[in-house]
Amino acid sequence: MSTKGVLVVISGFSGAGKGTLVHNLLSKYDNYALSISMTTRSPRQGEVDGVHYFFSKKEDFEREIANDGLIEYANYCDNYYGTPRSYVEEQLESGKDVILEIEIQGAMKVKAKMPETLLLFVTPPSAGELKRRLEGRGTETAEVIDKRMKRACEESEGVEQYDYIVVNDDLEECTRQIHQIIRTAHNTPNHQMELIEQIREELKAF
Amino acid sequence: MSTKGVLVVISGFSGAGKGTLVHNLLSKYDNYALSISMTTRSPRQGEVDGVHYFFSKKEDFEREIANDGLIEYANYCDNYYGTPRSYVEEQLESGKDVILEIEIQGAMKVKAKMPETLLLFVTPPSAGELKRRLEGRGTETAEVIDKRMKRACEESEGVEQYDYIVVNDDLEECTRQIHQIIRTAHNTPNHQMELIEQIREELKAF
Repeated sequence: MSTKGVLVVISGFSGAGKGTLVHNLLSKYDNYALSISMTTRSPRQGEVDGVHYFFSKKEDFEREIANDGLIEYANYCDNYYGTPRSYVEEQLESGKDVILEIEIQGAMKVKAKMPETLLLFVTPPSAGELKRRLEGRGTETAEVIDKRMKRACEESEGVEQYDYIVVNDDLEECTRQIHQIIRTAHNTPNHQMELIEQIREELKAF
Repeated sequence: MSTKGVLVVISGFSGAGKGTLVHNLLSKYDNYALSISMTTRSPRQGEVDGVHYFFSKKEDFEREIANDGLIEYANYCDNYYGTPRSYVEEQLESGKDVILEIEIQGAMKVKAKMPETLLLFVTPPSAGELKRRLEGRGTETAEVIDKRMKRACEESEGVEQYDYIVVNDDLEECTRQIHQIIRTAHNTPNHQMELIEQIREELKAF
């Protein structure tokens, strides 16, 4: 069987329930590791270095960029955010399936650098349901909800570039489905190469 | 949810247990239909037209070729064998996942014509186990077994062209795994296009 893990990007509309799904996967199954982003922004209250983010100085971040130490990165509002390569690779080597919760631009950069990456897009069953969920949070103003719906409209254009679309209607069922999709990726030739080579050698010897 | 079925090719070494796996899938789950091949060879004792094969005259078979009525075909020992397109397409349209049990050359032809096809390759856990299974049948001469092992050696070269490799160590586990891989294929953007389009339209209307 394959020993190396699968790199998984989980994207989806804001309000699709990605965060809860990822939390659910990590707590239900022991084959997952969550990638931790590196950022140059200051920690907010309660944020712990190495748990929520790896907090870094601008010059350290830029050195990582120069050394190709990040799988992807972006600059928002004058702060860098990126995915450190070494942590992801260590986890993959140790057999963990590594989850990255990032959005479409980042997802495409990861896929370009690591073509074996599995890209999953999570959607609610309908746009109406998405709006109800955003409203149901009770924390966003009508203006913010409106902005998120517009953003969802833009994001929906890139959905075909993902490998799999998962509908988050029932949380448990959706978690199970994502888990199955990720397990299935272990059966690709790429992950079965060791076994294939071994059988080939054996067959030649007969 | 997607309504159209997935076309699945199952190939594998002779002795890997494909036949039993396919039988198991068909009897355990109700989402499968088995593609029936068309052939110009004469029926053997006990073979029923429309069950084991669609038996056809040479001129009828050649008309099917001319009309692009076959997804793939080949000529062995002066007899044609092929996969009728209409039956497969009807079953896919009706939502069935259609299983084709064919070998690598046929698999590649199907993939070329219908790129959405899922290619699965079944292997025993080792070449030694493959040999034991062939010997265990007790029906083949040493010479035939030798030929099959040589053929397996050739076949093993094409394995990377498959989408998934499945190890048939435990029959029930392997059946379950194949079923999961096929269900997972229903989550590709291609199979979720209707939902995606619907959400896009809804999002634009907000």
